[in-house]
Amino acid sequence: MIRAGVIGATGYAGAEIIRLLSRHPEAEIKWAGSRSFAGQSLSDIYGNMFEIVDLDCIDDDTDRMKNEIAKLAKDTDVIFTATPQGACSSFVTKELLAGTKVIDLSADFRLTDVAVYEKWYKMKHNAPELIKDAVYGLCEINRDDIRKTQLIANPGCFTTCSILTAYPLVREGLIDTDTLIIDALSGVSGAGRGAKTANLYCEVNENAKAYGVTTHRHTPEIEEQLGKAAGRKLTLQFTPHLVPMNRGILATEYASLVATDGSGRIGRAAAEAHVLPKEADLRAVYEKYYGAEHFIRVLPDGKVPETRFVEGSNYVDVNIKVDERTGRVIMMGALDNLMKGAASQAVQNMNIMFGIREDAGIDMAPDFP
Amino acid sequence: MIRAGVIGATGYAGAEIIRLLSRHPEAEIKWAGSRSFAGQSLSDIYGNMFEIVDLDCIDDDTDRMKNEIAKLAKDTDVIFTATPQGACSSFVTKELLAGTKVIDLSADFRLTDVAVYEKWYKMKHNAPELIKDAVYGLCEINRDDIRKTQLIANPGCFTTCSILTAYPLVREGLIDTDTLIIDALSGVSGAGRGAKTANLYCEVNENAKAYGVTTHRHTPEIEEQLGKAAGRKLTLQFTPHLVPMNRGILATEYASLVATDGSGRIGRAAAEAHVLPKEADLRAVYEKYYGAEHFIRVLPDGKVPETRFVEGSNYVDVNIKVDERTGRVIMMGALDNLMKGAASQAVQNMNIMFGIREDAGIDMAPDFP
Amino acid sequence: MIRAGVIGATGYAGAEIIRLLSRHPEAEIKWAGSRSFAGQSLSDIYGNMFEIVDLDCIDDDTDRMKNEIAKLAKDTDVIFTATPQGACSSFVTKELLAGTKVIDLSADFRLTDVAVYEKWYKMKHNAPELIKDAVYGLCEINRDDIRKTQLIANPGCFTTCSILTAYPLVREGLIDTDTLIIDALSGVSGAGRGAKTANLYCEVNENAKAYGVTTHRHTPEIEEQLGKAAGRKLTLQFTPHLVPMNRGILATEYASLVATDGSGRIGRAAAEAHVLPKEADLRAVYEKYYGAEHFIRVLPDGKVPETRFVEGSNYVDVNIKVDERTGRVIMMGALDNLMKGAASQAVQNMNIMFGIREDAGIDMAPDFP
Amino acid sequence: MIRAGVIGATGYAGAEIIRLLSRHPEAEIKWAGSRSFAGQSLSDIYGNMFEIVDLDCIDDDTDRMKNEIAKLAKDTDVIFTATPQGACSSFVTKELLAGTKVIDLSADFRLTDVAVYEKWYKMKHNAPELIKDAVYGLCEINRDDIRKTQLIANPGCFTTCSILTAYPLVREGLIDTDTLIIDALSGVSGAGRGAKTANLYCEVNENAKAYGVTTHRHTPEIEEQLGKAAGRKLTLQFTPHLVPMNRGILATEYASLVATDGSGRIGRAAAEAHVLPKEADLRAVYEKYYGAEHFIRVLPDGKVPETRFVEGSNYVDVNIKVDERTGRVIMMGALDNLMKGAASQAVQNMNIMFGIREDAGIDMAPDFP
Repeated sequence: MIRAGVIGATGYAGAEIIRLLSRHPEAEIKWAGSRSFAGQSLSDIYGNMFEIVDLDCIDDDTDRMKNEIAKLAKDTDVIFTATPQGACSSFVTKELLAGTKVIDLSADFRLTDVAVYEKWYKMKHNAPELIKDAVYGLCEINRDDIRKTQLIANPGCFTTCSILTAYPLVREGLIDTDTLIIDALSGVSGAGRGAKTANLYCEVNENAKAYGVTTHRHTPEIEEQLGKAAGRKLTLQFTPHLVPMNRGILATEYASLVATDGSGRIGRAAAEAHVLPKEADLRAVYEKYYGAEHFIRVLPDGKVPETRFVEGSNYVDVNIKVDERTGRVIMMGALDNLMKGAASQAVQNMNIMFGIREDAGIDMAPDFP
Repeated sequence: MIRAGVIGATGYAGAEIIRLLSRHPEAEIKWAGSRSFAGQSLSDIYGNMFEIVDLDCIDDDTDRMKNEIAKLAKDTDVIFTATPQGACSSFVTKELLAGTKVIDLSADFRLTDVAVYEKWYKMKHNAPELIKDAVYGLCEINRDDIRKTQLIANPGCFTTCSILTAYPLVREGLIDTDTLIIDALSGVSGAGRGAKTANLYCEVNENAKAYGVTTHRHTPEIEEQLGKAAGRKLTLQFTPHLVPMNRGILATEYASLVATDGSGRIGRAAAEAHVLPKEADLRAVYEKYYGAEHFIRVLPDGKVPETRFVEGSNYVDVNIKVDERTGRVIMMGALDNLMKGAASQAVQNMNIMFGIREDAGIDMAPDFP
Repeated sequence: MIRAGVIGATGYAGAEIIRLLSRHPEAEIKWAGSRSFAGQSLSDIYGNMFEIVDLDCIDDDTDRMKNEIAKLAKDTDVIFTATPQGACSSFVTKELLAGTKVIDLSADFRLTDVAVYEKWYKMKHNAPELIKDAVYGLCEINRDDIRKTQLIANPGCFTTCSILTAYPLVREGLIDTDTLIIDALSGVSGAGRGAKTANLYCEVNENAKAYGVTTHRHTPEIEEQLGKAAGRKLTLQFTPHLVPMNRGILATEYASLVATDGSGRIGRAAAEAHVLPKEADLRAVYEKYYGAEHFIRVLPDGKVPETRFVEGSNYVDVNIKVDERTGRVIMMGALDNLMKGAASQAVQNMNIMFGIREDAGIDMAPDFP
Repeated sequence: MIRAGVIGATGYAGAEIIRLLSRHPEAEIKWAGSRSFAGQSLSDIYGNMFEIVDLDCIDDDTDRMKNEIAKLAKDTDVIFTATPQGACSSFVTKELLAGTKVIDLSADFRLTDVAVYEKWYKMKHNAPELIKDAVYGLCEINRDDIRKTQLIANPGCFTTCSILTAYPLVREGLIDTDTLIIDALSGVSGAGRGAKTANLYCEVNENAKAYGVTTHRHTPEIEEQLGKAAGRKLTLQFTPHLVPMNRGILATEYASLVATDGSGRIGRAAAEAHVLPKEADLRAVYEKYYGAEHFIRVLPDGKVPETRFVEGSNYVDVNIKVDERTGRVIMMGALDNLMKGAASQAVQNMNIMFGIREDAGIDMAPDFP
């Protein structure tokens, strides 16, 4: 059995990891950490886990952790860190990584350029020397590298959805990335379990709003990964919105199509010259990249991704629509932010790292309604 | 592998059975039936099942079914009927039951007294001769009988919750059943997937109301089962309410406690005479009945059942509170109406009938949030 | 114009008073107080009021208020206190009441017996000498006394709904009050705008639970008022539940009916002796009490009160159903907890106190959906 | 008093008109029409209106209406048609318009080009000869023309929000309209009260999806109106989404800014040349157009429009954010789809047409929460 520790086990993402591991056929929960609830029974805080997980939370203050590297390395095979920015990088060391694997759900190791990290997160990076050892844990894209690393930067929820939705067309150079706009919706669990007025039921219910407009921290992460796919640096627009539901990310992405005749015409110009790519051909590109992927479903013509149909699962649904009036393609993707957008992708990464079945413990069918 | 057929597979409960069977380690879906969507792909109707279940719905009109009894008996080991009242009883025969097991999610075989059925359901019973062969499939109470039957009357959602919440105290004669009042809340999926104005989002959202006041059809079912526990006929009050959530049943049940001194005093009179049972003793009674039950969780003192903590699972949470002012006990229970209140209890019944692990395919941890 | 001050203007109830006063034809907001947001623009905190109310919150710390009694009395005609328990009673004095009227939305002056207050609220009462001057502001019941007082104890939300729903039958002695059980549902705004984890969107959404079982503080308030109606002290059962909606209280109340033949038989015994009151006669009793009341609507036979149909208004909807099997009457009521359950009833009290049209500024039609 | 008739009074928009007129100081409801509920009491269908509007629905079948033009013209001063496409144009005639004013909430008279109407709505236009007499009832833009017409084409909900959000910058030529992308969210009431499975609570709740991608019928309406503002024909991208809330439209609009130096550079090129317009200057443009408008609120820097803050009111909130990385401006707007997006704008049009106070009967403060 894979012995797992979870730091930040009483946040929504951490608790979801606990839930998944509690039923995982090849893993066991060695300990669950929490600063706020140290010493308390986990099921006292997450009533759903009553009689399922019988653990008291240990104190997972990172200062304390730093002093127990040897013990952590010895007692666990993998550590999940479901903590705010800066926590993971403040205690992970080469010594720890020599003894155990780390899957970090924060942004600490997602960006290869420290300067970009420090600009968007407005904090100093605690362990820049480890960045090059980390692999960006977008399973379907980086599977081979994930197998070989000890340190995973588990992608963000908006990011996973945004990247996977556009990846095939960006990779194949079929869209003009300068025109790429990502407009996304998120359920409220993405905001975490902290007691903030802004996330009270009555503040969020019966409301929709944009937030982090032009400044959301997932922007550079999407830019870096899609940039790698495009083979050049990208600048794109990303706007998240908060909508009243517990779970779910829906990304709607817009880009002008590149003419099929090599003319370089884009968008409406290509449309007017009748050299716009056909929707069926573009969908075939998605099938080329994702057809064999268990957890990415390319929907048939006429279906749109909906968060209800991926909820509770590790699936990502994607589809596209070509607009012959504007010459744009609208790319759409949906996932469950706590699952593929956080916890189940983290477990998927664990499965890959340990060479077990990739779907072990995370192959539940989405539960609707 | 257990070969299963599902009649009414495109209702919410039927689709939930499909979802559970799709991941069940010892069962396979032989066919899925639907009258409204005959010939259509199931995943076209339930997008969550895309690439998970690849089946076209067969026409499951009961008139048609009646003519294929021999084939049904030969091709399946078990048939689930997730249909409106009257459907199951209109085609199930002794011949069918000789060849296959039937788990009926409707009320057709839940009431032993045909007259009661016909009064509350306002329709003639189609197969009164089969009633005595049916077992009421409340797994934790009737496990032994379930093992031996070919025909299960799978309990209703309100019923499962209401009965299990009060059962130990009724069985032990600790409450005055004449004072028993069951006030229950239900999520909207209990109303089914039919296109009715009353169940539109804007009609249900931001609303709470009682319905079926004094006339709800689950009343005689609760009365019969709790009556059996009490050893005498019962008349009780049952009031359901509709509240804006997808899933969940919450029962709050009130009854006057019987004095511990054999005086027959009840409620406030017992309280004033200081002969009221202690809450801890009553909780111990729950532990006696449910302590060994995997899917019934008796909560610790101070916790109340909440639907969020059982959602997506086969668990029932129960707890009690004694009111020393009024001499009443308030009994509370929560479950997921589509799971323990319908589909997962149906699968639990299947597991028991086939002698496999009772939790096979239904042991998911509740998913919160 | 009536010059009004509002203490606690940035809680949900306080802000609702501000909203109502902003459009009131005969009142003006003199100042809005807030401890947490002193000095900030009110519309910065309640974006709905942008360009409608242009006020900065004053610091309404009660210690500070105590030192400005003369000024308060001079500058305002009425002060609303939408504050936690203990605040109003800590600064209101006879001197203040000599100069201005006070409408207190807390429980400080709702209970005439200080001991009961101190027992249920677990705090010392700050101004017991003022209790006898206060009038319980249930407008339809105490209108004459409201006209003459300077100090209103504005009723709680559960209380207003629970009392008005049962009042006619209690007053007329038609039910056995010992059997009275009040089961109520509340929207989340009743919990206030404080930043508590328990009230986060993801904690409340898709959930239903009971709370304050046997101990909710509105219990003695209901007991006192219905006791006055009954002409004797009452002990009753009250259980509130939290359901996922912004606004709304729904009360479902159970009681055994008293035989019409003077035999004293109640409930099932009366039913079996065919001396149960008729539902139509009971509804006529409601009409007798409420037929002339603008804001209480006695629904016709077959309709149940629903919170969606009173939302955003000062209306209370009530109806009953007699159960001939059990001999009970089920009484049901619905209101908007922030309106008739708090702010609009407070304004209704103000209107009565100042002798203006009782519906001034609060006569909006409920907005559905 | 203005005598008003309402055709389609039992849809959500029609019922909202009824609600507004029921409290309008200068209008009275002459009759309310419904095909589905002809002969039934309106308050039987809309329980919120019980004891407020006491009217039985008349049969408003348009074939019947056609035969009563003279009577309609004589009995009413204004007729609202809250009906599906094709209904209004099938019975309105010059004769009717000579005698009464018509405010049509459908799309029948919104598009000046019949061909465009017939292409997007896939139906023949019934009264093309009347199109030139109709005025597009976007009050703040077309106030002068509204005053003089007898026939108003009341704008759609997405349209009102989308146009008003971008109008000032389009009008002033500050953005490249070829790059304009409108991504919008809608509450569910926009889908109407028809009994469709897709709009059931459990289908919509906990879900987000795009719909009508590239084909939504509000597209040409937005294009025509913004095209008029720009002084040239426009083609733009419009994508609506459905999110789980009763009311509200939120528009997020993207466009590349035009350089301030007259170079014609747009977007990132302008940003890199440091000739991007300043955000404060752009906000000043909004103030120029909307500063004097009572019902359009230009939010201060740092605030985003949120649907909760306009709900229940006729307000539209708008704001912008300039992205110096991409050279785009993100324009955001929010309104209540049943109010400013339908019923209250219709009443605002009525007020203007009759020369009474523009805010009569529609000046409620938004109700939050």
